[in-house]
Amino acid sequence: MLYLVGLGLADEKDITVKGLGIVKKAARVYLEAYTAVLLVDQGALEAFYGRPVAVADRETVESASDDILRGADKVDVAFLVVGDPFGATTHSDLVLRARQLSIPVRCIPNASILTAIGATGLQLYNFGQTVSMVFFLDNWKPASFYDRIKENVSIGLHTLVLLDIKVKEQSLENMARGRNIYEPPRYMTVAQCAQQMLEIEDDVKQEGVYTRESLAVGVARMGSEDQKMVAGTLGQLCHADLGRPLHSLVLLGRRTHDLEREFLEEYAVDRESFNAVWNKDYGGKG
Amino acid sequence: MLYLVGLGLADEKDITVKGLGIVKKAARVYLEAYTAVLLVDQGALEAFYGRPVAVADRETVESASDDILRGADKVDVAFLVVGDPFGATTHSDLVLRARQLSIPVRCIPNASILTAIGATGLQLYNFGQTVSMVFFLDNWKPASFYDRIKENVSIGLHTLVLLDIKVKEQSLENMARGRNIYEPPRYMTVAQCAQQMLEIEDDVKQEGVYTRESLAVGVARMGSEDQKMVAGTLGQLCHADLGRPLHSLVLLGRRTHDLEREFLEEYAVDRESFNAVWNKDYGGKG
Repeated sequence: MLYLVGLGLADEKDITVKGLGIVKKAARVYLEAYTAVLLVDQGALEAFYGRPVAVADRETVESASDDILRGADKVDVAFLVVGDPFGATTHSDLVLRARQLSIPVRCIPNASILTAIGATGLQLYNFGQTVSMVFFLDNWKPASFYDRIKENVSIGLHTLVLLDIKVKEQSLENMARGRNIYEPPRYMTVAQCAQQMLEIEDDVKQEGVYTRESLAVGVARMGSEDQKMVAGTLGQLCHADLGRPLHSLVLLGRRTHDLEREFLEEYAVDRESFNAVWNKDYGGKG
Repeated sequence: MLYLVGLGLADEKDITVKGLGIVKKAARVYLEAYTAVLLVDQGALEAFYGRPVAVADRETVESASDDILRGADKVDVAFLVVGDPFGATTHSDLVLRARQLSIPVRCIPNASILTAIGATGLQLYNFGQTVSMVFFLDNWKPASFYDRIKENVSIGLHTLVLLDIKVKEQSLENMARGRNIYEPPRYMTVAQCAQQMLEIEDDVKQEGVYTRESLAVGVARMGSEDQKMVAGTLGQLCHADLGRPLHSLVLLGRRTHDLEREFLEEYAVDRESFNAVWNKDYGGKG
C-alpha cells in the first residue's frame, strides 16, 4: 500500500494519530520537501517517529517515482507531504503511477493553509480560486496571478496568495557545470509579495484590479504557537515584518461580513485607517 | 486558554498528536456536533480520549457560550470541531466572545473537506467559491447556490457543494408544544443534491449554468477506509448510490487539465460516456 500522509503545517506533532501509526509501521518513509516545508527540520521528524526518513526531492518524485513505489504492492510505503497530500499536482502523478503498477493507495488528509487561513476570521465561503506568487527575476515577472485575482475581485471574493519557496535550487552556473551545489533556501515574505503585486498593477497591467489602498491580510507560521497576522492596505503590507517563514497573503474581496471586520481589526497595522478603508470600500459592498 | 481543536474527517484517530495532547489535559472538553459530524459517535471519542466529552449543540454555542468559556482565563478548555475549526462562522463568534473576556485562544488546524476533496484528482487551484445545499421543502427551495455556481462556471472553475445535515432538529409541532423530542438525523445524498440542482435549473432559473449532461463527482466518507467516489453526468449522479453519509459533490468547471480526467475516469459510472462528455465539453476549454 502507498500511503500519502499529510503532516499539517507547523511541527512534528501536527501529524494525525492515524498518520503516525502508519509512519511507525511502514517499510519505508519518504518526505516530500520541495512544494512546502514544515517549521521544523527532518531531524525533528526522525526523532519523533523513532526512525529514518528519506527526503524526496522534486527530481526523485517526478522522475524516479518507481524507486519510491518499489515493492509497495507487498509492503507499506509512507510518502509524507506537508499540509494536505493533494495540495500539489505532483502527487496526482505518483498516484497514477501506483495505479499502473496495481499498488493500492490511501490518503491520510491533514490541515492545509487553504483552510487554516480561516483563522484570520475571513469566511472560507468567501474565497475564490487560490493563486501562487513566484520570486520575480529582472527579466521574468510572471503575472498570471493577476488575471486570476481579477476574476475573484470581479465577483467580490477573497484571494489566498501562496508565496514562493526555493529549496535545493542550483545557480545557473552550478547547473551548467553539473556541480551539486545548492543555494541557501529562500522564502518569500508578505512584504515582498505585496511589493510584487503592486509592481504588476502599477507598471504592467494598470487595470485597477487592486491598489495601494486595497485591504489585505498577511499571515506567518500559521498553526504554530507564534503564528502572526497583520491586516492593512497593500501599501502598508509592503513594509510589514512578520518574521520567520512561512508567509501567506490574502487580498480581500468586497463581499464581506461585518464579523470579518470585527475579527480582523485586532490584527490591523493601524485600526483607525483599517476601519476607515473598510467602511469606505468594503463593508456591505458585496 | 480556549483551544479550538480540529478533529479531521472520519474517526477518532484523525485528531492530530498535538490536539490529542490538549484534549487529554484540558479542564473541560466540548464537542461541536451540529455543523458537521464524524463517522464515529461521541462514545468512540470518549473511549479514545479516556475522558468525558460534553456535546455542545447550536443553542449552547450561540447563546450560552459563556458557559463554555467559564474560567478559561485560568484553565484550559478544549472545543472540538469536526474538520478544521474555522470551517463554520459560528466559531468566529466564540473567539470574539473569548477576546472580550480576555481569554487567550489557540487553534489546532486539521483536515477539511475543502482540501481533502483534492483526493478526487481535481486540482485545488481550479476551485472557486464553495457552496452549500440544504434540504428543499415543498414551499422553501433556496437557490442562492445557483448564482454562486454561475459565477464559478463563468470563469471555468470547479464548485464544491457541501450537503445539508440535520441533527437534533425538532418538528414544528414539537417545537410549538415545547417538547424536547428530536427527529432522526438526516444526511443529504449525492443523488438528492444532483436532483435538487437540476430542479432549480430546469424549473426555476433556466439560465443553462449546468445541465443533465454536466460532469460532476460525488464523494462519500472522504478520509475513511471506505471512502467512495463516483464521476459522471449530473443526470447519472441522480441515480448514484454512494452508501452511508457523509456525502459531497463537485460540479466540474471547464478550466481543466488532462491529468484531472485521467485521475477521475477510474471513478466513472461509465468510462466511455465520461470521456466522451469530457472531450466534447471540458478538455482544453479552460
